[in-house]
Amino acid sequence: MTTAIPAGFAGRLDTRTSEREAFLRDETGLPGRTPRGVIRARSADDVVACVRWAGTAGIPVIPVGARTSLEGHLLARGDEVMLDVSSMDDIVSIDPADFVAVVQPGVTRKQLAAALVPHGLQFPVDPGADATLGGMAATNASGTTTFRYGGMRRNVLALTAVTADGEIHRFGRAVAKSSSGYDLKDLLIGSAGTLAAITELTLRLHPVPEAQGSARLSFPDVAAAVAAATDLIGSAVPVSRLEFVDSASIAALNRFCGDGLPPGPALFIDVEATSAAAMAEVLDDVDAIARVHGVVSVGRAQTATERTALWDNRHRLFPAIKAAHPGHQFLVTDTAVPYSAIAGAVDHAHRTAAELGLRVTTAGHVGDGNVHVVVPYSGGTLPRALAFSDAMVEYALSVGGTASGEHGIGLAKKKYLAAEHGSACDVMAAVKQALDPRNLFNPGKILDP
Amino acid sequence: MTTAIPAGFAGRLDTRTSEREAFLRDETGLPGRTPRGVIRARSADDVVACVRWAGTAGIPVIPVGARTSLEGHLLARGDEVMLDVSSMDDIVSIDPADFVAVVQPGVTRKQLAAALVPHGLQFPVDPGADATLGGMAATNASGTTTFRYGGMRRNVLALTAVTADGEIHRFGRAVAKSSSGYDLKDLLIGSAGTLAAITELTLRLHPVPEAQGSARLSFPDVAAAVAAATDLIGSAVPVSRLEFVDSASIAALNRFCGDGLPPGPALFIDVEATSAAAMAEVLDDVDAIARVHGVVSVGRAQTATERTALWDNRHRLFPAIKAAHPGHQFLVTDTAVPYSAIAGAVDHAHRTAAELGLRVTTAGHVGDGNVHVVVPYSGGTLPRALAFSDAMVEYALSVGGTASGEHGIGLAKKKYLAAEHGSACDVMAAVKQALDPRNLFNPGKILDP
Repeated sequence: MTTAIPAGFAGRLDTRTSEREAFLRDETGLPGRTPRGVIRARSADDVVACVRWAGTAGIPVIPVGARTSLEGHLLARGDEVMLDVSSMDDIVSIDPADFVAVVQPGVTRKQLAAALVPHGLQFPVDPGADATLGGMAATNASGTTTFRYGGMRRNVLALTAVTADGEIHRFGRAVAKSSSGYDLKDLLIGSAGTLAAITELTLRLHPVPEAQGSARLSFPDVAAAVAAATDLIGSAVPVSRLEFVDSASIAALNRFCGDGLPPGPALFIDVEATSAAAMAEVLDDVDAIARVHGVVSVGRAQTATERTALWDNRHRLFPAIKAAHPGHQFLVTDTAVPYSAIAGAVDHAHRTAAELGLRVTTAGHVGDGNVHVVVPYSGGTLPRALAFSDAMVEYALSVGGTASGEHGIGLAKKKYLAAEHGSACDVMAAVKQALDPRNLFNPGKILDP
Repeated sequence: MTTAIPAGFAGRLDTRTSEREAFLRDETGLPGRTPRGVIRARSADDVVACVRWAGTAGIPVIPVGARTSLEGHLLARGDEVMLDVSSMDDIVSIDPADFVAVVQPGVTRKQLAAALVPHGLQFPVDPGADATLGGMAATNASGTTTFRYGGMRRNVLALTAVTADGEIHRFGRAVAKSSSGYDLKDLLIGSAGTLAAITELTLRLHPVPEAQGSARLSFPDVAAAVAAATDLIGSAVPVSRLEFVDSASIAALNRFCGDGLPPGPALFIDVEATSAAAMAEVLDDVDAIARVHGVVSVGRAQTATERTALWDNRHRLFPAIKAAHPGHQFLVTDTAVPYSAIAGAVDHAHRTAAELGLRVTTAGHVGDGNVHVVVPYSGGTLPRALAFSDAMVEYALSVGGTASGEHGIGLAKKKYLAAEHGSACDVMAAVKQALDPRNLFNPGKILDP
């Protein structure tokens, strides 16, 4: 381990205005401030040196990767230095026999996926964006396959990280399970760079299923779609993706893609099986459950080409919504609720939107109770969009849910933390104080100050 | 919430010698000391009052449940008070629509399982012993189904706990996923009552599969059995249990049960499917993989009666070993290693045992790389048994594994913590100091002092 700050390390700080101003804005549209500068780390030693240099100088540090955060995790609030680890993008090892890969934090999801193809393996966490694995760990990312495979906590076995004292530590072990010591690995996952800077991740890989099939199921109403989803969850049918899309989303997709999808809310589903024959049977099981709930149209896809075509619609949802609202920005809610409250949450979204005069679309990872409402807004309607977000979070918390299913808290959702966690926020603050007493790491994110 | 210690709370302390001495010994055979007394909590308010009383008096507290710990978690080291929560055994709610149950910490695994039967649901974490759910959370328990369903971290959604300042907090939410705030829920799971006293748990329930089948596969040698297991893991066959038993264990079982199992190491496997027909296909897939690795005998079970009979052998393994070693105590190693090191770990166990003149048997949750070696010992051979444990942990750590796959650290495995986690132990100590600055909770477990 390095033990000192290399002479001249401060010279690594890129303070050009253009470089600093690149960090002024992110996906949230929230106002950021111009950071002091950017340090581009190329190794764990660089990260150690940067944290020690910053600690000595008393300058806070924000670790950044692909900057796909949706919650303002990476906006400077004052004089921070951006610690850019996106060039630490080596896939250190892929070990098919142990179902493990070791990566640097700047490796992106798609980069890893491509490297795993020859091994017939996958890293299943897919937040949509081509985020870095470090950023995905920092936000505890998940996505469409989380219902089947879990999110980052389940699929990161170990990580190395530099704490505020400039020491590098390994948290966790490269084994399927361990009950040794305090679970600091999972504490760092989701901590948004506020406790340490991640320098390496050890990931759990999974086999690609022998056969996968997909279905698009259209229902007369939201309640029927959600009831079918809940029955699927309870049926033990091997569902690997279970996505909900409301009728407003379907309308936007039909305008954008012209595929003439049946109107009405839909479920997009993937199932897994050990053979093509078994797959057909599993899809029959899905159909049978959907029929109980009055499914009005079933699209089935069994070949790779058919599956790509079916999912293309779901994947083009955000572009379709963007096309429908030129000149707008977009707020995306991220609440997760108990299954029994999903239909209520969707209903609440549409009624609240009507009251506020907003046009919203709803989609979500229904298998996880995670409801995303996309709210287009412009300068004039931002206050109403924020009021909408408040209403969705208030509803989620009232039924025992969470303000963030998968995007994290960052700056944008920080105001909901106390309502969700109550006095546990004090314990969170005690942990932050213990690990980062000088508030060196990404200050003001998740917790004040 | 209560805000004061009820008058006369100290009178709740049971100081009868017989009651105190009941805590002198546990499954480890390690020497304990006689605790100061026992407080039997009947409610969360009782736990709050006990922690406040103990805090005021400066007396450390050890939360205890069914006392099935295998690692000395519950042995007093000085003047502790045992905070017995085993009477807090209410199943607060079972909510089939949300796949959630809420239980008090003294509810046992079997008690919950019986209550879930009418709902067609299961809580899949099964450590073998009829432990309390609170104790299972405290040790991050797992077991035979963990390969499929995960351990306690994946299946406890939220918990309430009393911290050392006597405040009660809720950590986590009753939803499938959340990225809100620091993951203190998972920090408390596996912390062995050293950070807080758990007063309630919110659990994730799972449907019981439509069809389950089992197989017992006998192989010519350990390497073949482990290679078959690894291929099964990589095949995406829906395996829910994947257990390894060595030939010494099979010999002990044959002497004890008289079932004439084929000699040679075996895998015990459960698979899940959506129908009986699909089940037969899945078992054929298992057979095909086993044949590649030279399987010499296959026992297949598809009805509930057949499955019970097949698994009965596996479940009677410890009684069989006990019968083979009358008058002995038993040390059980708990290392977990990468898949590629399992065969080496088993080989290392038998060679080390031969060198030390010990007769050991090996079994394990091979799907998790978790290898248990049962070491019978008497007073005279205890030092050799401990040397054996050291050798197994040393091997596991040398290949990147862990000293504890599922039993936890407690007192018995504490000496291995630094070798496994290095400087991360300092961060663990900082967290302990932050949450329990006066070392009130279960002192000397996991970490010194």
